Amino acid sequence: MDPRRALSYARAGRGKFVSELKEFLRFPSVSSQPSRAGDLRKCAHWLARHLQGIGLDHVRVISTSGNPIVFASWLRAPGRPTLILYGHYDVLPGEPLREWRTPPFTPTLKNNNLHARGAADDKGQLFSHIKAVESYLRTGRDLPVNVKCIFEGEEEIGSINLNPFVERNQRALRADAAVISDTRMLSPEQPAISYAQRGGLRAEVEIFGPSRELHSGAFGGAVHNPVLALCDIIAGLHDDQGRVTIPGFYDDVREWSEKERAYMARSGPSDQSILRAANVEHGWGESGYSIYELTTTRPDLGVNGIVGGHTGPGAKGVIPTRALAKVSFRLVPDQDPYKVAELFREHIARVTPPTVRSTVQTMSPIYPALVDRKHPAVQTARLAYKKGFGAFPVFVRSGGSIPVVNTFQKILGIPAVLMGFGLPDDNIHGPNEKFHLPIFYKAIETSIWYLALASKLGAANRKSGQEEWSA
Amino acid sequence: MDPRRALSYARAGRGKFVSELKEFLRFPSVSSQPSRAGDLRKCAHWLARHLQGIGLDHVRVISTSGNPIVFASWLRAPGRPTLILYGHYDVLPGEPLREWRTPPFTPTLKNNNLHARGAADDKGQLFSHIKAVESYLRTGRDLPVNVKCIFEGEEEIGSINLNPFVERNQRALRADAAVISDTRMLSPEQPAISYAQRGGLRAEVEIFGPSRELHSGAFGGAVHNPVLALCDIIAGLHDDQGRVTIPGFYDDVREWSEKERAYMARSGPSDQSILRAANVEHGWGESGYSIYELTTTRPDLGVNGIVGGHTGPGAKGVIPTRALAKVSFRLVPDQDPYKVAELFREHIARVTPPTVRSTVQTMSPIYPALVDRKHPAVQTARLAYKKGFGAFPVFVRSGGSIPVVNTFQKILGIPAVLMGFGLPDDNIHGPNEKFHLPIFYKAIETSIWYLALASKLGAANRKSGQEEWSA
Repeated sequence: MDPRRALSYARAGRGKFVSELKEFLRFPSVSSQPSRAGDLRKCAHWLARHLQGIGLDHVRVISTSGNPIVFASWLRAPGRPTLILYGHYDVLPGEPLREWRTPPFTPTLKNNNLHARGAADDKGQLFSHIKAVESYLRTGRDLPVNVKCIFEGEEEIGSINLNPFVERNQRALRADAAVISDTRMLSPEQPAISYAQRGGLRAEVEIFGPSRELHSGAFGGAVHNPVLALCDIIAGLHDDQGRVTIPGFYDDVREWSEKERAYMARSGPSDQSILRAANVEHGWGESGYSIYELTTTRPDLGVNGIVGGHTGPGAKGVIPTRALAKVSFRLVPDQDPYKVAELFREHIARVTPPTVRSTVQTMSPIYPALVDRKHPAVQTARLAYKKGFGAFPVFVRSGGSIPVVNTFQKILGIPAVLMGFGLPDDNIHGPNEKFHLPIFYKAIETSIWYLALASKLGAANRKSGQEEWSA
Repeated sequence: MDPRRALSYARAGRGKFVSELKEFLRFPSVSSQPSRAGDLRKCAHWLARHLQGIGLDHVRVISTSGNPIVFASWLRAPGRPTLILYGHYDVLPGEPLREWRTPPFTPTLKNNNLHARGAADDKGQLFSHIKAVESYLRTGRDLPVNVKCIFEGEEEIGSINLNPFVERNQRALRADAAVISDTRMLSPEQPAISYAQRGGLRAEVEIFGPSRELHSGAFGGAVHNPVLALCDIIAGLHDDQGRVTIPGFYDDVREWSEKERAYMARSGPSDQSILRAANVEHGWGESGYSIYELTTTRPDLGVNGIVGGHTGPGAKGVIPTRALAKVSFRLVPDQDPYKVAELFREHIARVTPPTVRSTVQTMSPIYPALVDRKHPAVQTARLAYKKGFGAFPVFVRSGGSIPVVNTFQKILGIPAVLMGFGLPDDNIHGPNEKFHLPIFYKAIETSIWYLALASKLGAANRKSGQEEWSA
């Protein structure tokens, strides 16, 4: 199918697309904050109405025990392949707000960048595919392939409800490949396809000291300070070499062949370019690996937040009652997040001294994932990038985690084509997140090309009619 | 002078005294919070009016670069000794508010306990002496001794302005002894006179990591997490034996004779009673010392608060930009807080890895202090307690810090008589602070007796007229 009319439509529609994306970004759809549940619902319904508006069929807002899944499909190309278009409409919190130059949920255009929480992760990237679909449906009333859109509202909290949903609806979700745009390019000129994602696990470790705040004069030196105890425990999680000390943690970490490591060294970013993107001078971590390896093929244990005792202005001479650390793991093949959770729980219990009490809560287990870069659906994305960006993409590993990649591969048996449109300095997860509009436009065209080129893929799943749902 | 009329007045006036104390407690005079400066000023003026009202002379609210000092005197007993009555009208913050059963600045009477922030530390204790003075002035128009009241608003932040004020006004503040009620009894039946105070020092250690929050997927494992770095540094401040690792920290710590240690073991609280007061099961800290020793003759390094990264509800997969620990030292003879500040700063600079940056701010240096328990002004307090409480007090060391004790001793050359009226479970510095009213009444009578008995002390300083002030 000739994409030319769709491409013309997309070029003419840029102003409209940006206005629509701004509307989408206005929803503070922060999935990690339970108080935002209403905003997520509103955002889901806005998205569903939008999909209806551009001409998709079977639009549904599917309730879950958490945030709804927005589904839509177009299955009028019998015999052609079926693609799942996946994205997430939930975002991270905007905090710390004082570090934003413009409010996170007031999308603001500056120097061709659209600033807002979720601009790149993932509303803007997701929207690129929606606009590509619209460009076909508004010009020719037909898509080159069948599509099933799955837009979830819980990616940032581990796709808690999406994974079981996919398991329960394997037949209804049958497809030939899934397209996911939630990763990064190397630079505006150098697109990239991700072929590996780290898994993850979150944990909250809380240390309880005295049952009430104690005067540090009266008791300091003789009652264990829970902040000190927490610092001891956290400090003990790494050895001097930057390796995680949890017994068994590295047992399932896959060692890569020299050939693969050489490929990574050739095709991946340099140490310096990663540090430059992070705006830090010195690397850190396990020795014996490049920074690209450290952030993709090696696991990580970090602390996203810590709090305990008196944290306001001024002083308070007390022994606090408790202290909390928000720990996060990034896991690599073949680590199992459930096993790591168990090892971590056991380890914390073992290293907690008798002078304090500890609790561990684990959340958001995500399996690491690998994609076969030779798969035709992935190779087709190479060609689409060449058309959309004028350059072939490189294949890179990502350090981040997209929970559903593993699910799509394991449950549906289809590859996830990770076509990233983020830039290294888009500041996803940080303040002043942005999406670069010239990339947005090229992303739409790349998606238009991908839909066209994918029509030539073998369709394993010729019968792709709507099925019964189990939500 | 016969205290009988004053005692009758004090007994009859209990209801009125409690109402007045409640008024005093209503001021949120939190010296560590700059936003409360206005409340401290209001509280100082209320206190000054009150002192004027009960018949004291020369009442002044003396401005400083921080919170005002309230001064008043009564110097109409020429040839008799002069006592400084010292107390502080500033309090600690009420936070964490959710742990209070009644609001900290809404004084609430429950089971003969007056609950409010500052009820025992120090408004209630200070007020006991004011009511004793009133009991004389309202019945006989005369006090048995000369008095100079000094009530400051910065005790909880290290008496920043009081110490230089005392140095500048040595002549105007000439006296024979200072009475300070800002310490604890062993139990309602067992009064105590403190003869040692620990010194102190506060420090804020801040660790700076990446210049903006980084995605922990993209960079985790290769960029040093400032929370991990801070935990490493804090954990490294103690060795396995609970000893502080800062080089030189113990150099000036005085070792006590077997005789003094035996006296402490005999007269001081048991390990079990201290742990019971703290409501904790296990002791902690340096080995080789009793818990009473650990909290009085040994120095302590604790953390009052720690904060960094995402501390709100939910998760945020980031490497934070910085993390802060509020450190507090308790120091013992012959440690010098200024020297410890220097050692600490050097130590933190030395142990900060090149992957992060650190800053150290030190505040509120307080010298440790010792009082001669044989001094006549102290021995007189023994007799006053026997009269007021029906029991002789024991002599104990305190773990807390009253900055001015050392100043009075060093600059004015007078002993500080530390007549404590707090109870071990008064929860000073914690939530639900209280003052036990039966103790309040006995404290007033003890003070009435002390003023009477002190009239027989030798007055080193017969000329005690008002002098010129330098504020």
